[in-house]
Amino acid sequence: MAGSTYGNLFSITTWGESHGPAIGVVIDGCPAGLPLTEDDVQQFLNRRKPGQSKYTTARSEADKALLLSGVFEGVTTGTPISVIVHNQDQRSRDYQKIKDCYRPGHADYTFDAKYGIRDYRGGGRTSGRETIGRVAAGAVASKLLQRLGIRVMAYTKAIGSITIPETEYDYGCINDNPLYMPNNEYAKKAADCLEKCVKNQDSMGGIIECVIDGMPAGIGEPVFHKLDAALSKALMSIGAVKGVEIGDGFQAACAAGSKNNDGFYMEKGKVCKRSNHSGGTLGGLSDGSQIVLRAAVKPTPSISQDQETVNVYGEDTPITITGRHDPVIVPRAVVVVESMAAITIADLLMTNMSARVEYLERIYG
Amino acid sequence: MAGSTYGNLFSITTWGESHGPAIGVVIDGCPAGLPLTEDDVQQFLNRRKPGQSKYTTARSEADKALLLSGVFEGVTTGTPISVIVHNQDQRSRDYQKIKDCYRPGHADYTFDAKYGIRDYRGGGRTSGRETIGRVAAGAVASKLLQRLGIRVMAYTKAIGSITIPETEYDYGCINDNPLYMPNNEYAKKAADCLEKCVKNQDSMGGIIECVIDGMPAGIGEPVFHKLDAALSKALMSIGAVKGVEIGDGFQAACAAGSKNNDGFYMEKGKVCKRSNHSGGTLGGLSDGSQIVLRAAVKPTPSISQDQETVNVYGEDTPITITGRHDPVIVPRAVVVVESMAAITIADLLMTNMSARVEYLERIYG
Amino acid sequence: MAGSTYGNLFSITTWGESHGPAIGVVIDGCPAGLPLTEDDVQQFLNRRKPGQSKYTTARSEADKALLLSGVFEGVTTGTPISVIVHNQDQRSRDYQKIKDCYRPGHADYTFDAKYGIRDYRGGGRTSGRETIGRVAAGAVASKLLQRLGIRVMAYTKAIGSITIPETEYDYGCINDNPLYMPNNEYAKKAADCLEKCVKNQDSMGGIIECVIDGMPAGIGEPVFHKLDAALSKALMSIGAVKGVEIGDGFQAACAAGSKNNDGFYMEKGKVCKRSNHSGGTLGGLSDGSQIVLRAAVKPTPSISQDQETVNVYGEDTPITITGRHDPVIVPRAVVVVESMAAITIADLLMTNMSARVEYLERIYG
Amino acid sequence: MAGSTYGNLFSITTWGESHGPAIGVVIDGCPAGLPLTEDDVQQFLNRRKPGQSKYTTARSEADKALLLSGVFEGVTTGTPISVIVHNQDQRSRDYQKIKDCYRPGHADYTFDAKYGIRDYRGGGRTSGRETIGRVAAGAVASKLLQRLGIRVMAYTKAIGSITIPETEYDYGCINDNPLYMPNNEYAKKAADCLEKCVKNQDSMGGIIECVIDGMPAGIGEPVFHKLDAALSKALMSIGAVKGVEIGDGFQAACAAGSKNNDGFYMEKGKVCKRSNHSGGTLGGLSDGSQIVLRAAVKPTPSISQDQETVNVYGEDTPITITGRHDPVIVPRAVVVVESMAAITIADLLMTNMSARVEYLERIYG
Repeated sequence: MAGSTYGNLFSITTWGESHGPAIGVVIDGCPAGLPLTEDDVQQFLNRRKPGQSKYTTARSEADKALLLSGVFEGVTTGTPISVIVHNQDQRSRDYQKIKDCYRPGHADYTFDAKYGIRDYRGGGRTSGRETIGRVAAGAVASKLLQRLGIRVMAYTKAIGSITIPETEYDYGCINDNPLYMPNNEYAKKAADCLEKCVKNQDSMGGIIECVIDGMPAGIGEPVFHKLDAALSKALMSIGAVKGVEIGDGFQAACAAGSKNNDGFYMEKGKVCKRSNHSGGTLGGLSDGSQIVLRAAVKPTPSISQDQETVNVYGEDTPITITGRHDPVIVPRAVVVVESMAAITIADLLMTNMSARVEYLERIYG
Repeated sequence: MAGSTYGNLFSITTWGESHGPAIGVVIDGCPAGLPLTEDDVQQFLNRRKPGQSKYTTARSEADKALLLSGVFEGVTTGTPISVIVHNQDQRSRDYQKIKDCYRPGHADYTFDAKYGIRDYRGGGRTSGRETIGRVAAGAVASKLLQRLGIRVMAYTKAIGSITIPETEYDYGCINDNPLYMPNNEYAKKAADCLEKCVKNQDSMGGIIECVIDGMPAGIGEPVFHKLDAALSKALMSIGAVKGVEIGDGFQAACAAGSKNNDGFYMEKGKVCKRSNHSGGTLGGLSDGSQIVLRAAVKPTPSISQDQETVNVYGEDTPITITGRHDPVIVPRAVVVVESMAAITIADLLMTNMSARVEYLERIYG
Repeated sequence: MAGSTYGNLFSITTWGESHGPAIGVVIDGCPAGLPLTEDDVQQFLNRRKPGQSKYTTARSEADKALLLSGVFEGVTTGTPISVIVHNQDQRSRDYQKIKDCYRPGHADYTFDAKYGIRDYRGGGRTSGRETIGRVAAGAVASKLLQRLGIRVMAYTKAIGSITIPETEYDYGCINDNPLYMPNNEYAKKAADCLEKCVKNQDSMGGIIECVIDGMPAGIGEPVFHKLDAALSKALMSIGAVKGVEIGDGFQAACAAGSKNNDGFYMEKGKVCKRSNHSGGTLGGLSDGSQIVLRAAVKPTPSISQDQETVNVYGEDTPITITGRHDPVIVPRAVVVVESMAAITIADLLMTNMSARVEYLERIYG
Repeated sequence: MAGSTYGNLFSITTWGESHGPAIGVVIDGCPAGLPLTEDDVQQFLNRRKPGQSKYTTARSEADKALLLSGVFEGVTTGTPISVIVHNQDQRSRDYQKIKDCYRPGHADYTFDAKYGIRDYRGGGRTSGRETIGRVAAGAVASKLLQRLGIRVMAYTKAIGSITIPETEYDYGCINDNPLYMPNNEYAKKAADCLEKCVKNQDSMGGIIECVIDGMPAGIGEPVFHKLDAALSKALMSIGAVKGVEIGDGFQAACAAGSKNNDGFYMEKGKVCKRSNHSGGTLGGLSDGSQIVLRAAVKPTPSISQDQETVNVYGEDTPITITGRHDPVIVPRAVVVVESMAAITIADLLMTNMSARVEYLERIYG
């Protein structure tokens, strides 16, 4: 399938450039009968909207979602759902002067290498604004998952080296701080760290964690489209993500089997685990416990410091990037991670419906 | 697409269970005109064959590859290549006594949750033997990549906490030690560590690194099927992998932008980078430098220590796993990582051929 | 893949309902470097626009195409091309009174059976307006094919029993008559026949033929995605098409092999055929001669005569369909057939680029 | 997806050449819990086995199916089902002398044009033996459909111009004559016609009809993967098929709407139709009535008469084809049509399971 379509049964196709007239997504395969409003989508988009704190770009975009199809009298009809957001505050002149230079850490060079042509304004298709379509689709997927008792929640676990230990999580305060951290004190420390970054004309990375509760056991399609494999791709497809792990992740590499195995026990007729080192999957299928994912996000490549680079004419050149940029990508990427996870799970839940003859009989019997 | 098919243009479908009569793969979409012999495939399979050192299971399997189609007079014809390996040394009785128990860290429970039925003998489809098909296909993909000047190489970077620093790599000795480590001294230390594991009836994890040289720039399909996203899925789909990273990976999360950006410069008319924090991709496309991937592998879940678990009747029960098991999965998984990376890159190279009208003109003009 | 996405490498996703705010398509995978303007798309859309003759619905729609992404400075960039057309002249009240009835020959009942909900206004997603997205994409695909010397041309071969024999084709006059027939006299006869239909409050079917010149030999992906198989699906996916054939088609069923085989001969170093019973494919691959396809189109199901039907409450009921309808679907479907053929061929041309190692070397060498 | 894989959720991958060691199929995505034996598969294969009457090739093949995976204790497990058939009676020498010539009506030339290399022995991959894999998969799909009360049945409607009118069908006698015709008298006439063909060293085409009973309404995925579109591709992908129609098919092109529309009425609480011109689909979805398909099959291209052709050196040359060939493809293709229809329907039934939120709740609630 072409590069801008993701998912098999619950499938999304995003389109649009940073400085084009609009940006959007077509969500195809959403089951019929789901109540859905523009406001459902808007609430998700608001979480990634720029200009909400000093840690996000000053570009002023309402990011107002319009629902153009697939919903009738407030309910999905099973036909494609088209969502469009008009771009408003493009300042293409910021890019005019560096259009012939390859910005370090950006995809300018690689897009030219691939396509031989590139809309340089605001990064074109490689802009973070591309994720608008993902988030709009994530709103729809999340609404569907809620109906099935599944809740996806992402938040900032670390900004630079400021990492919140699991024991100090307070999920209640995630929306109380502009960094979406589940601990306000750590959020304060992280904010201080970012202040320093801004002063140094620098930027910072971080870690986003995503937990999924209420998953039925058995979701995922072995041997290649396993739940963890699919989620990895989903998260790594987000611009700045450089690493993904599930459960203990890289820590599992230095654990002994006797410690890493999660023992089973029965509770109220349900198979439970005494620990969750696996992060909620076994053999690539959900095991009924909480799914725990983490994505490593690199620092924003656009920094105001002078940098060395080359231009399209094959010459070495210094580059100074002006314009409006987030000193950290992490907080606005939180809802993107949540969205990609929700879309992936919706798709795999739908695929799993034909795992047993018995399920077919339940629908067609 | 169904779960056992992977890849779009260069596509593989694996089949077979640990204790069934045979196991195999169909490789479809391999370009015509590639010299290919059974021996090419066998060489790859030998690298994952059991019984080669004391760190691998004693199950004795020749793992002899038979090429049943798609090759004519020593050259691929563009039609599906079917490779089959007959199973020989099944000892199903080892599994008879635990067939009703869910082994901790294994997929027994999740497969029952998904399908309601499970071939319990040797893990059935979830056995490591499933990777035979991947490795056979990896041999074919690697041969294709070689023709294009691309070399994929995987090796063991760490066993447990024994990690080889990049500065001490000696690629020349990878095949000199049974752990496939690029440093014989570290390999010795790791071997000692594994001896202790075996004595403790325990197991150990580790990290596999994979580097790819000779990649043309621009490979990958934004925005969802980016090179790094595709490689992540490829690696995470391998049984015991719990985390994947590219370039600096999780370290990038605590780096400043000024350090993490790789500055460009020109050398001999080619765009080069002064560092490779990105691990060879920018915006999800190859940037012409070395691709650097790492996969975290969990410890073997089958250990001889007594463990707590539940059975299919919903009862708590102790379990003792006998049979033949590797104390560490890592060394035999090295060639699996290499294979999955090669297959993924072959597929994306083929997809990229239609990125420009100019390329179509080059073929059809 | 979900139902509204078509194509693998050259991939289109259509969306929108007859009486929603807009209708559109996202074209993903179009190679970079193709000059493309809104006018290119508009010219195709004008060929299916309503209100152009007395044989088409009086609904007045400008069907003005807006290009929202994927084109920069007049040239495609390899990123998704989003085209949107705003609906203007919806008269939903025409449908209010029959919203609870299942119109015979329409998909009202089957959509309710599938989704349990249906946008009844103007047929919703099942309206002929859905093809706007296909035609916009067809314009892009055709432009690409032109660059490669391939020309797709569709026209009306028959209206009801008025069939133009091949010997009387005059391709030059296709655009001279509102029925897009390659013979003005037959077009006149067909027009008379349609006049009678209108008087009888009835409708008529017909046959669309599509020829493709300039095809390179070898296009198609055996054994399932053969050129003829793919084209069949492409044409049968158009609302009113009930049959598809290639070359002699159903006539081949009563031919002897000695007559049906096309003998080969050499001319100017090229393999040629003395006849073209096969319609330009052998073994599902293009053979270098003209591709000849035909699609049987059923009569418009919306007729003003009273009909018998049932309603959503499970009661028998008469139905009278008012509103604005074409007495014949054929002429407006001509460009839809042409578009679907062009899209299919673009996709298979791109797929074929990796058929040989030699081609990969030509791009990556 | 690559050319030898078909289907999305119920997915098959066929492999193998006429004169290779074996031929086979991997069926992936078959739901778990279906009783399945080698004999189930063998019964289907026997219907296409050569050497059963004087109208089929004298090549002697047992076509014995071996089930290598995916079935445990007589029941499918949800993992890939691998079926293999060893070739036995290859007589490659028959092909040695014409290996440099392009047989008229065959894919020799087009395969060379595509791949630049070709296994000429017995047609290699383009041999009718390729359908063995399809038929083995069809056996599995049919078994699944039976469980859901769906019955697919194909038969010969016409051999050359000997066509059985619908009014004279006697389904009970389909297996009583070697041509699989539902009328023994017509079968006798057709046999006489074929005798003459054989004497003339010629061959004959025909029409296969396929009816499907017990279909639930609403199956198919608009707008591109409609039931009729998918079935068209399925049938056209069979070697010799040159045309496909549904319901009245090409006859609908010269029908008036008032005649072609099927009026609805209620019977026993079920929506029924007074006629079935549509052939069981409306808007590309099953309408609950019988599905009626027809495929036009061309005459066998291998005939013993001398023919004109060219060779691989670009020279005109006469060709005389010896070897063993069916004078008519139709009877052996009957079970292939039935198989492809069954596979397609199984796949679309599975896809349809996620059409409504309500269905997801039924599985996950």
